[in-house]
Amino acid sequence: MITLVDYDLIRERLTSSVISDVLDGMGVRGQAMASDIRPLSDEMMAVGKAFTMLMTDQYDTEKETFTLQFQAIDSLKEDDVMMVCSNGSERAALWGELLSTAARHRRANGAIIDGLVRDVLLIREMGFPVFAKGVRPTSSKGRVIAVDHGCPVEMGGVHVEQGDLVVADIDGVVVVPSGVVEAVVEKALDVVERETMTRDELRKGAGLYDVYKKYGTV
Amino acid sequence: MITLVDYDLIRERLTSSVISDVLDGMGVRGQAMASDIRPLSDEMMAVGKAFTMLMTDQYDTEKETFTLQFQAIDSLKEDDVMMVCSNGSERAALWGELLSTAARHRRANGAIIDGLVRDVLLIREMGFPVFAKGVRPTSSKGRVIAVDHGCPVEMGGVHVEQGDLVVADIDGVVVVPSGVVEAVVEKALDVVERETMTRDELRKGAGLYDVYKKYGTV
Amino acid sequence: MITLVDYDLIRERLTSSVISDVLDGMGVRGQAMASDIRPLSDEMMAVGKAFTMLMTDQYDTEKETFTLQFQAIDSLKEDDVMMVCSNGSERAALWGELLSTAARHRRANGAIIDGLVRDVLLIREMGFPVFAKGVRPTSSKGRVIAVDHGCPVEMGGVHVEQGDLVVADIDGVVVVPSGVVEAVVEKALDVVERETMTRDELRKGAGLYDVYKKYGTV
Amino acid sequence: MITLVDYDLIRERLTSSVISDVLDGMGVRGQAMASDIRPLSDEMMAVGKAFTMLMTDQYDTEKETFTLQFQAIDSLKEDDVMMVCSNGSERAALWGELLSTAARHRRANGAIIDGLVRDVLLIREMGFPVFAKGVRPTSSKGRVIAVDHGCPVEMGGVHVEQGDLVVADIDGVVVVPSGVVEAVVEKALDVVERETMTRDELRKGAGLYDVYKKYGTV
Amino acid sequence: MITLVDYDLIRERLTSSVISDVLDGMGVRGQAMASDIRPLSDEMMAVGKAFTMLMTDQYDTEKETFTLQFQAIDSLKEDDVMMVCSNGSERAALWGELLSTAARHRRANGAIIDGLVRDVLLIREMGFPVFAKGVRPTSSKGRVIAVDHGCPVEMGGVHVEQGDLVVADIDGVVVVPSGVVEAVVEKALDVVERETMTRDELRKGAGLYDVYKKYGTV
Amino acid sequence: MITLVDYDLIRERLTSSVISDVLDGMGVRGQAMASDIRPLSDEMMAVGKAFTMLMTDQYDTEKETFTLQFQAIDSLKEDDVMMVCSNGSERAALWGELLSTAARHRRANGAIIDGLVRDVLLIREMGFPVFAKGVRPTSSKGRVIAVDHGCPVEMGGVHVEQGDLVVADIDGVVVVPSGVVEAVVEKALDVVERETMTRDELRKGAGLYDVYKKYGTV
Repeated sequence: MITLVDYDLIRERLTSSVISDVLDGMGVRGQAMASDIRPLSDEMMAVGKAFTMLMTDQYDTEKETFTLQFQAIDSLKEDDVMMVCSNGSERAALWGELLSTAARHRRANGAIIDGLVRDVLLIREMGFPVFAKGVRPTSSKGRVIAVDHGCPVEMGGVHVEQGDLVVADIDGVVVVPSGVVEAVVEKALDVVERETMTRDELRKGAGLYDVYKKYGTV
Repeated sequence: MITLVDYDLIRERLTSSVISDVLDGMGVRGQAMASDIRPLSDEMMAVGKAFTMLMTDQYDTEKETFTLQFQAIDSLKEDDVMMVCSNGSERAALWGELLSTAARHRRANGAIIDGLVRDVLLIREMGFPVFAKGVRPTSSKGRVIAVDHGCPVEMGGVHVEQGDLVVADIDGVVVVPSGVVEAVVEKALDVVERETMTRDELRKGAGLYDVYKKYGTV
Repeated sequence: MITLVDYDLIRERLTSSVISDVLDGMGVRGQAMASDIRPLSDEMMAVGKAFTMLMTDQYDTEKETFTLQFQAIDSLKEDDVMMVCSNGSERAALWGELLSTAARHRRANGAIIDGLVRDVLLIREMGFPVFAKGVRPTSSKGRVIAVDHGCPVEMGGVHVEQGDLVVADIDGVVVVPSGVVEAVVEKALDVVERETMTRDELRKGAGLYDVYKKYGTV
Repeated sequence: MITLVDYDLIRERLTSSVISDVLDGMGVRGQAMASDIRPLSDEMMAVGKAFTMLMTDQYDTEKETFTLQFQAIDSLKEDDVMMVCSNGSERAALWGELLSTAARHRRANGAIIDGLVRDVLLIREMGFPVFAKGVRPTSSKGRVIAVDHGCPVEMGGVHVEQGDLVVADIDGVVVVPSGVVEAVVEKALDVVERETMTRDELRKGAGLYDVYKKYGTV
Repeated sequence: MITLVDYDLIRERLTSSVISDVLDGMGVRGQAMASDIRPLSDEMMAVGKAFTMLMTDQYDTEKETFTLQFQAIDSLKEDDVMMVCSNGSERAALWGELLSTAARHRRANGAIIDGLVRDVLLIREMGFPVFAKGVRPTSSKGRVIAVDHGCPVEMGGVHVEQGDLVVADIDGVVVVPSGVVEAVVEKALDVVERETMTRDELRKGAGLYDVYKKYGTV
Repeated sequence: MITLVDYDLIRERLTSSVISDVLDGMGVRGQAMASDIRPLSDEMMAVGKAFTMLMTDQYDTEKETFTLQFQAIDSLKEDDVMMVCSNGSERAALWGELLSTAARHRRANGAIIDGLVRDVLLIREMGFPVFAKGVRPTSSKGRVIAVDHGCPVEMGGVHVEQGDLVVADIDGVVVVPSGVVEAVVEKALDVVERETMTRDELRKGAGLYDVYKKYGTV
């Protein structure tokens, strides 16, 4: 069902904010991540199916920490968005240019990291959409390890399941549960039109309060 | 009295840093907000009279939360800067493009939000100066409610009264109590001149310590 | 010994991330600062010898707080990078345009501030590389005082000694203990070459896991 | 329905931990508050029906801030537990000895404050169960105001509705949605018995893993 | 003037909460420290004249860090309360049993540490009133150094001057500026009497709201 | 080698503070955990060999999360102290009464949890020494999982290896690397004697500064 979603249409016409409003209207709340997960550059937009990974800090510097992580990235498919739950790790970068190169070759649509990344300039040059909490030059090698993938995770306060729709742009990261994706996209296209009318009236000097009473939204 | 302030002159010649120094020199300390309230883009500058609003989180998803907030925005006047105290809310965006559109139509000079906002790209396109702690796509509808406006508020550690002068730029947000506005602006114009002399001497190789002894400031 | 380091070569060929990886490989861990110390603009890079300063908040508004700080800055030498440990101060800007002007005239290569700065636009115009935790218009005068310089400090969780090599760019700030500088630079130049091979293979579609097994790094 | 709950039975036989486990088993998760809301003394236990109040910081020192708060406390009924959501306020004590005296006279069973309190010694002497985040001598007068009561609130990360069952003891504060109270209490009494068997086996030296396989819980 | 204050009377009849209320009534706000500075045991009360010390982290493990600190403690006089501003240090204990022994011999009345301490059991045995943010076994030797004493400091958000009155008990730490000490104590003794009347009425079932209207305070 | 350590002697004669000082004197720094890991009651002391476990949050509510954790606890030996690294988890209690019962039966000497626990009253009754960051009634079942044991961990900022000596009391938790245990204990017994002399002199009125010059320590 999700494979029928038109990701390009979402990218062109919708935003994380509109989708968040539609989810609110359907009573599906708590789907927008906290404000500290930001795009590496302002124009980046990641839209696709969540491919989840759960990582955690570990402290054996000699431990082989890349195996499961790399197998997961190697299994990315077209339109996947890699969702990396760090469980609060700030010790190391969990994503970088070489992982972006590998993910892009598999036609993934982006990566959302609830933690740190590196190689910012090279990732921007590639134009691969990466969202993260911050930047640090430290490698995850021997520091952070993948413990599972394809599992439920929690990122920025949002529960994410494998296959959910992810829409991330400069306003933030929103997760749409897989069961309501089609309904959400349809309603969101409608909301965008109504907002245009609201904007036009406000530009002409209408009161916010009056417009809100008239259209039921602002 | 404040209506005689030349806001354009401040925008052209002064900065938040110079005004902060002048306030220090007059013994009026504690007027610069904490460093986490930032402009949505680097060139934004908001200068004008504080129009305050006090908001707070609430948890009744069906509650009508927009009425008082919209009435306040609809009553903005020329040269007002909307000052939104969120009382620490990080649940939702308290400002966005449509509110900016309404505020601009009333000739307001900007909005300082001690909380989150959304619609970053559209606000930048408009060029309406908005300063905030961060960005999140979530609507405040049913989440955050205005409890008062025109009242004293506290934002980024600074006490703000309705009618105070606000000067916000890339270095931060400074609040000038209404009773000292004229004196502050006059002194600030003088400081700017002296700094030019200091800079010239430093560029020629003068020691910081010597220049400081000579001019009494750096 | 350190005076023989080719800082221009580092600036052109290396990055903080590559140097961090090399230090890891040599078992010298914990040399990359926390992720909240960021460049004032994305292209800034500071490479040079650490010149340390230890500052702390003080609360006597009449106290002369600039003397030791300015003497330290006046004693900067070519290729020094000023390293300001604020001990957590968020009360005031510890660096600005005039200090940058003075430091540049002495041919210093940048300033890393484990605290706040101001005059962001003017510093960017100068192109002097400044890294900091944030921005605030408040002067340090009467607020923050230098208690020592040339001493060991701790910034962003990293121990820094006078004379260590500092490499700071958009990925973060890395400190190389003075005793291993030459070895680190030599190895880093080698790693950069190997990464190019890895990138080429990944672009052609090689699996991350396979490449990692082949080259022993990613 | 809730009026039939035997609060004394809960106090004598059950604990917050057992009730939390039962809620987990029923798939009702997220009902235990964060760990920073603690009893004023170790033996305190508050069991009863939630009577909610929503408060927020305000900054008009002359404002009459007690009216709604006192009307709410005056309307407490037998077996109510006052639930004060502070929206993060740390400016003042939101509860104290005199409010405890008034609440006790109305036969309330305790107060849970997602914020600060004062008069610790006197409240302990009274034996009125009060749970809070901390202690500060500052009055809320002119600082914190009630904006609503009987409304949904969020405390320590838990959504609380008027009339929910509250069970608070040294292990923490658990909220049972009003619709499942009877089922939860019944199951909890059963769990307590099974735990006694588990404890006996463990004391005799049984392996945790074996006991867990046998009883399905530990 | 301050030498005439009857510290024993304060200890017997007053509390930090009553004094905080009186200061509020006089418009002297912001005098109660944040809630994280707590007594080492519940019955401790420290009342006396502030003797201030400003400390800061330093990172030269070989540095002699005790000289100024010990000279300050050796100069304590009867009824002084040592006020240690740590500037946020959490690296080491800034107070312990031996310092308490030395301070007590000089008839000091207690120590308030805006940081960590150690030797909790031995200090409790001595009954010397110590208030602190927490406990850690680490010595300050080579870690934290006194940079001044007798100077203004800021602790728990409160500005403290040498000679101010300090009243600390289980409800928190309140600082009374030296110029208003006598007026505050006099008023506080009066408030205590009125509170007794309020309590009596509440115990008899009076409404909080009615009592508040009658006495103007609760 | 470690098996020859006399744990009872340490419990009777030494403290975490003395051992921390001795480690400092040997240049082994950074061995005392942060101040937020506290004993469940003031008199608890845990002394023994570290048995490490690494846990992390996971979000599959149906996942079997107890297997590895219980196998680890079942393999505890006499004089072991269970060291649970939670990687920052605050979602659930990682230790409780039944685990304490199992650990005690295997003659373990205590448990240090860099996270939350529950069943405080029952654990106190048992007298099993448990140290933790806080208390929450929530079960770890389906929330937090053990990913390894016997591995290096990091708790409260301290690196801990299997077999290190742990000494925890009311002043905090200190870890002695296994290679220096005997030397540390021997020196610590000596320091305790010297401190007694210092205390005696201070009680007789000696100056701190003079005593420090005489004995080289305080």
